[in-house]
Amino acid sequence: MKEITVFCPATIANISCGFDVLGLALDAVGDEMTVRKTAEKGIRIKKITGQDLPQDAEKNVAGIAGMALLEKSDYQGGFEIEIDKRIKPGSGIGSSAASSAGAVWAMNELLGQPFSNLELVQFAMQGEKLASDVAHADNVAPALYGGFTLVRSYNPLDIVSLPTPPELVATIIHPQIEIRTSDSRKILKTTISLKTGIQQWGNVGGLIAGLFKNDYDLIGRSLKDYVVEPIRSILIPLFGDVKFNAMEAGALGCGISGSGPSIFALSKGMEAAKKVAQSMHETYSGIGIPFEVHVSRINTQGVKKIG
Amino acid sequence: MKEITVFCPATIANISCGFDVLGLALDAVGDEMTVRKTAEKGIRIKKITGQDLPQDAEKNVAGIAGMALLEKSDYQGGFEIEIDKRIKPGSGIGSSAASSAGAVWAMNELLGQPFSNLELVQFAMQGEKLASDVAHADNVAPALYGGFTLVRSYNPLDIVSLPTPPELVATIIHPQIEIRTSDSRKILKTTISLKTGIQQWGNVGGLIAGLFKNDYDLIGRSLKDYVVEPIRSILIPLFGDVKFNAMEAGALGCGISGSGPSIFALSKGMEAAKKVAQSMHETYSGIGIPFEVHVSRINTQGVKKIG
Repeated sequence: MKEITVFCPATIANISCGFDVLGLALDAVGDEMTVRKTAEKGIRIKKITGQDLPQDAEKNVAGIAGMALLEKSDYQGGFEIEIDKRIKPGSGIGSSAASSAGAVWAMNELLGQPFSNLELVQFAMQGEKLASDVAHADNVAPALYGGFTLVRSYNPLDIVSLPTPPELVATIIHPQIEIRTSDSRKILKTTISLKTGIQQWGNVGGLIAGLFKNDYDLIGRSLKDYVVEPIRSILIPLFGDVKFNAMEAGALGCGISGSGPSIFALSKGMEAAKKVAQSMHETYSGIGIPFEVHVSRINTQGVKKIG
Repeated sequence: MKEITVFCPATIANISCGFDVLGLALDAVGDEMTVRKTAEKGIRIKKITGQDLPQDAEKNVAGIAGMALLEKSDYQGGFEIEIDKRIKPGSGIGSSAASSAGAVWAMNELLGQPFSNLELVQFAMQGEKLASDVAHADNVAPALYGGFTLVRSYNPLDIVSLPTPPELVATIIHPQIEIRTSDSRKILKTTISLKTGIQQWGNVGGLIAGLFKNDYDLIGRSLKDYVVEPIRSILIPLFGDVKFNAMEAGALGCGISGSGPSIFALSKGMEAAKKVAQSMHETYSGIGIPFEVHVSRINTQGVKKIG
């Protein structure tokens, strides 16, 4: 195989209680990317459509992630990449992770799968580092493994695949204001109260147990964030209204997607998720901030070949 | 039924990463208790063997828990209780929880099970409040539900039953020094770093995923405590040596049981657990502190009728 075209899923990191450790992959939102082997060494970004992003491989997350892979590979050639960028950068649904993960997954396929998913995450994390100064894994892990993932530990990197209850559907509103991941990390406090910590790890435990048990009520009860949401939500216009209305519309839970500004909700069933989408539309209509709303099942496969 | 005799299991709270939320019940260590209906109202502690504990029902955890139950019941009579106390108070393996949980479970049986397990936990928590100033649930929940339990939230009280991997065996050493739960709570810091919090909820997630997946390695990797163990372990003589030697002997993980001074280890299989017991014996032998070592499978049933 000389060339491959892949779907690179958008992802929701943190999922309320699981700051820096939990993430999930989406089915209906993502980039497309074509990767081609070349005799010439190194990585070249040949074309980017959809968004205005740097084509210099050293300034592009897909390029950086690809270089991290090449460095560990005995492959003597290089790759060229074409990206159809459908996830808006800075949206909080893993735009950089989709590119980083998609690039290394595609390259691994073209090389005959010499690397494990865990290794691919490590390469893709280099792209994340370029994008947000921190080599976080909570978007690239679900993008590569699919479904829900837990980053149990960063040192050593330990990623745990979690089950996906079949009726779970995500709704996401992306208010098109810019919040840089690096900025949204800076406003977080460096300490939390022990009491808050206990609440948070109780909820992480509850959410994970809910995923294994297909217990949608327990999932809903556990989708609480006492650590980050109270601080970060002030950067997102109408966050409280969106959340209140989404819960009224029947969502199991609602919170900030990654570092925002996107807001996600999880619902049981497509019908409920669409009602939540409607409520998000209504909440944001007429206030003068452009926005997009997505409804998506959970993608249990991760990056996948589409051509 | 007028009279019942029950086994009241010892329990391990916290289980390293899950401070205040996780607990498990033991099979081979516990009290025995006989509870009898009486025409006379109220609770009377008729006899306590094994330990020197107050027989005044208002000063006894079983009495207090029983009164909490009576208050919510339309039963017009009372109960008398005989306790064969085999778990040493102050050992850190849920001595007070065993009495509280055993009493209310037995009474509920005698009344024809009018109360749910969740209600029984709430009654038993009143006993815990008497014992340690705090109405914690992380010992009484596993004592009543059996197996591993998660206290997802205290307000409202939300308890999640977790699966028990069949080959998991606990080893416990009880150094017979006194650490009061209330004292061991006072030395804890009221804040933790966000970074420590992230590590902790990553491990809670990993441990719970490991229980569902029967993944003993993942359970072992997750049995880490960055919050409490570094502080409380200084109160326990030779904690570091016991842990090091237990891990060398093949334990999956090792930590403080509840608020100590008992130290627990979890191992895969009885043979490994016995080797760990041997290492604990050797570590504590000859230093002049009396100790007991127990090896126990996990009790998946909780309090149970034995007569």
